[in-house]
Amino acid sequence: MFYKLIQKIDRIHPFPQAKAHCDIPCGIYDPITAQIDALTVVRMMDLIAGLSEGDEKARVEFHNSMSRYIAVKEEHAEKAKHEIRVIWGDFIKDAHVEKYPELPGLVHKIMQLGSKSRQTADRETGLAFVDAINQFSEIFWAIKEIKTKKAKAPYAPSLEMVYPDL
Amino acid sequence: MFYKLIQKIDRIHPFPQAKAHCDIPCGIYDPITAQIDALTVVRMMDLIAGLSEGDEKARVEFHNSMSRYIAVKEEHAEKAKHEIRVIWGDFIKDAHVEKYPELPGLVHKIMQLGSKSRQTADRETGLAFVDAINQFSEIFWAIKEIKTKKAKAPYAPSLEMVYPDL
Amino acid sequence: MFYKLIQKIDRIHPFPQAKAHCDIPCGIYDPITAQIDALTVVRMMDLIAGLSEGDEKARVEFHNSMSRYIAVKEEHAEKAKHEIRVIWGDFIKDAHVEKYPELPGLVHKIMQLGSKSRQTADRETGLAFVDAINQFSEIFWAIKEIKTKKAKAPYAPSLEMVYPDL
Amino acid sequence: MFYKLIQKIDRIHPFPQAKAHCDIPCGIYDPITAQIDALTVVRMMDLIAGLSEGDEKARVEFHNSMSRYIAVKEEHAEKAKHEIRVIWGDFIKDAHVEKYPELPGLVHKIMQLGSKSRQTADRETGLAFVDAINQFSEIFWAIKEIKTKKAKAPYAPSLEMVYPDL
Amino acid sequence: MFYKLIQKIDRIHPFPQAKAHCDIPCGIYDPITAQIDALTVVRMMDLIAGLSEGDEKARVEFHNSMSRYIAVKEEHAEKAKHEIRVIWGDFIKDAHVEKYPELPGLVHKIMQLGSKSRQTADRETGLAFVDAINQFSEIFWAIKEIKTKKAKAPYAPSLEMVYPDL
Amino acid sequence: MFYKLIQKIDRIHPFPQAKAHCDIPCGIYDPITAQIDALTVVRMMDLIAGLSEGDEKARVEFHNSMSRYIAVKEEHAEKAKHEIRVIWGDFIKDAHVEKYPELPGLVHKIMQLGSKSRQTADRETGLAFVDAINQFSEIFWAIKEIKTKKAKAPYAPSLEMVYPDL
Repeated sequence: MFYKLIQKIDRIHPFPQAKAHCDIPCGIYDPITAQIDALTVVRMMDLIAGLSEGDEKARVEFHNSMSRYIAVKEEHAEKAKHEIRVIWGDFIKDAHVEKYPELPGLVHKIMQLGSKSRQTADRETGLAFVDAINQFSEIFWAIKEIKTKKAKAPYAPSLEMVYPDL
Repeated sequence: MFYKLIQKIDRIHPFPQAKAHCDIPCGIYDPITAQIDALTVVRMMDLIAGLSEGDEKARVEFHNSMSRYIAVKEEHAEKAKHEIRVIWGDFIKDAHVEKYPELPGLVHKIMQLGSKSRQTADRETGLAFVDAINQFSEIFWAIKEIKTKKAKAPYAPSLEMVYPDL
Repeated sequence: MFYKLIQKIDRIHPFPQAKAHCDIPCGIYDPITAQIDALTVVRMMDLIAGLSEGDEKARVEFHNSMSRYIAVKEEHAEKAKHEIRVIWGDFIKDAHVEKYPELPGLVHKIMQLGSKSRQTADRETGLAFVDAINQFSEIFWAIKEIKTKKAKAPYAPSLEMVYPDL
Repeated sequence: MFYKLIQKIDRIHPFPQAKAHCDIPCGIYDPITAQIDALTVVRMMDLIAGLSEGDEKARVEFHNSMSRYIAVKEEHAEKAKHEIRVIWGDFIKDAHVEKYPELPGLVHKIMQLGSKSRQTADRETGLAFVDAINQFSEIFWAIKEIKTKKAKAPYAPSLEMVYPDL
Repeated sequence: MFYKLIQKIDRIHPFPQAKAHCDIPCGIYDPITAQIDALTVVRMMDLIAGLSEGDEKARVEFHNSMSRYIAVKEEHAEKAKHEIRVIWGDFIKDAHVEKYPELPGLVHKIMQLGSKSRQTADRETGLAFVDAINQFSEIFWAIKEIKTKKAKAPYAPSLEMVYPDL
Repeated sequence: MFYKLIQKIDRIHPFPQAKAHCDIPCGIYDPITAQIDALTVVRMMDLIAGLSEGDEKARVEFHNSMSRYIAVKEEHAEKAKHEIRVIWGDFIKDAHVEKYPELPGLVHKIMQLGSKSRQTADRETGLAFVDAINQFSEIFWAIKEIKTKKAKAPYAPSLEMVYPDL
């Protein structure tokens, strides 16, 4: 009795099918922003690893830079998770999940890796985060029937990224 | 070759088991904030439905109120989705998904209903959003082994809500 | 001559009486979100107290965690203050202040304790912040003529909290 | 037993006296930003009052402008309230309240007028909001022992404002 | 006497030359996010143009959609301006301005077109905004010595965009 | 062919001349908020310079204060840059640039000094940032044909500031 309403609303206002055009919040989806965010997370991990405390004057600069790198890492890991969630909630339909059954697990893994990338400064975690989002990007473009290619990012860390082949 | 890293990182830094204590971003999880947000969405739908344009002076007030109700509806639907995503990404572990296999689909449905609640002012959609989050809340408290109860919310719209029985 | 306008506007558009129904920004008021925020402040103080610098690799993780705990403490202390300010400005009417003359002083104290909880990592300050907001919560529910109860929070730090008895 | 802690913390860590130098969140307080925000609220009310729907093409521009004016009004009314709350919570000490006993009521009125300025597009309410914040500004500068003057704002609506006489 | 300090600081701490590696806020610059934002502005203009008020029930949905399209247009026009400002302030050095003397005027034009795209729902303005940012993108990639190509955006409105040829 | 549109739009919808009244986003421009933000940046640099680590208990307070000062410095440097960008993009017209040809370079310098003020805790950089914004303020008020004066800021650091002479 209590949660029947969800089933009911599904029958009355069925969610659009996979082919349906989507309006806003549909807008313009592109995983590239999440990919750049994840790359930025790795970049911050590299900058953090390169810092050293040094003498008294350097110590203030050490704290200033350390604080800023951590804050930028936080912000971009969060943004990447947010952007994937938006595509997941607004663009991905049940029919896509049937065709790509790994999607729910992959999205869950992206959320976990994003959180782990905030909790640590461990580069391996950051790399796994980038890879998981690249994997999501590959599925996204496949759904849109646009071919992808792999190329090095044109900025440090120049990891291999998935791009639509336009 | 390309995405092997995710499997590798899983072996090296396994994600904490379901029983593990979680640190921040773990912090303090409580679905009540998402439940209140979803209730606010329905409240705004009710206020929107109650507005009428009237005469010239009333017309300005109509636009002022309409804009604000829509903006508050947007904000709280978004916040509810964000909060569920945080609990989903940071608190829910693979072992929980095994025990509650409906979780990935339920989370996906919450994201879709949250977006639909932004796209329309349709009360049925808002009610389904509240119900889906109540259902999530029930599972959340069951995982924490805390009993729940149902009670009317102490403010309009006084829908039946799931609360931990403290 | 200069500030007479305030008196004038009061006569022309009197503020709604205590019994008046309030619209948005009235919306749905619930001090529970501020209470959870204040609890999170104490939780962060506890996590900060538990950190130690250790060796070289641990040092990076120390800074990463320290930065994040402090930022979460900042954010939640601020959010708690904001939420109490909203209830204070939008829900509390002059008639309530007459009935509960301690309210203005209590709100001022909450603002001061929230700021102090940001300025230090001192647990006693955090506990006083939680208590002051619990005290506000008790008055809030009394105004709404809903009974309250006390119970331990269902997460660390499991302090005694004020809940509406629904 | 329950809320004794507040009294205790007051004895152990007394809040700084009125003369004490304040650190951040103390920082640099200046009510001018809240005064400009309140003026902006009146400006938006004037622009809203000047809009008319007109024909089909004008109708889209009408909605575009109306939405934006309302949003800017919302944002600046909120910012003004926030800024006054910060000065109130961080700068104003108990000794100031003793000297200016109208302060708690004035701050409460500012919060109410800010909310009312969001709820309506009524110019009288906006003017009262500006006046109340000017009144707060006068007390603020008196506490700092800096003389004030009155002058027209150098932009529309060129209302009479309180400025420090530097 | 008064502003000599700027000249002095330039001599003491000269800004890095065009070839210098830049640290954060340098991070990872990519105009693609601003390009997507500008495209979204045009998309919203198209959606706004397609709306009609219709009957009573449709009227609520009309206001809901209109409000949301305008808000999304606002947000993305603002974001595009912000992102160009960041690249302009953090990546572009004086040596670049010498080589591309049109840069200051182009950046100023982008800011003006971004504001105009917020003030109206006029598609021509939106197209000019997209074009100006594409032009900025072309210079940006030329500075980095990476070739660009033109291709249709893989989503509506599928305008011709500048992409790095990776 | 590709970017001709900008020239076209300029002919069809010419940007308003220098004397034109400006609407929102024009609103109410006042560089004082950017000036206060820049002053806050210097204040934080002074507070950072005054911190010392001390013993174990002091160490936690050291990290708490250091993190907060850096974050406030970040936020206000960013806000100052944002506010100058708004005045630059929305208020300053081509005719102003013709009359004050130093404007584009000055705005670029403000952006660079704002970024440098985030990257370091170096007081000289902060002072140059304040001075550059004071210089911008002087030109701004000259455009509006309002005389300015110089006076010490009424809070630490009491640097010489440019104020309109109202």
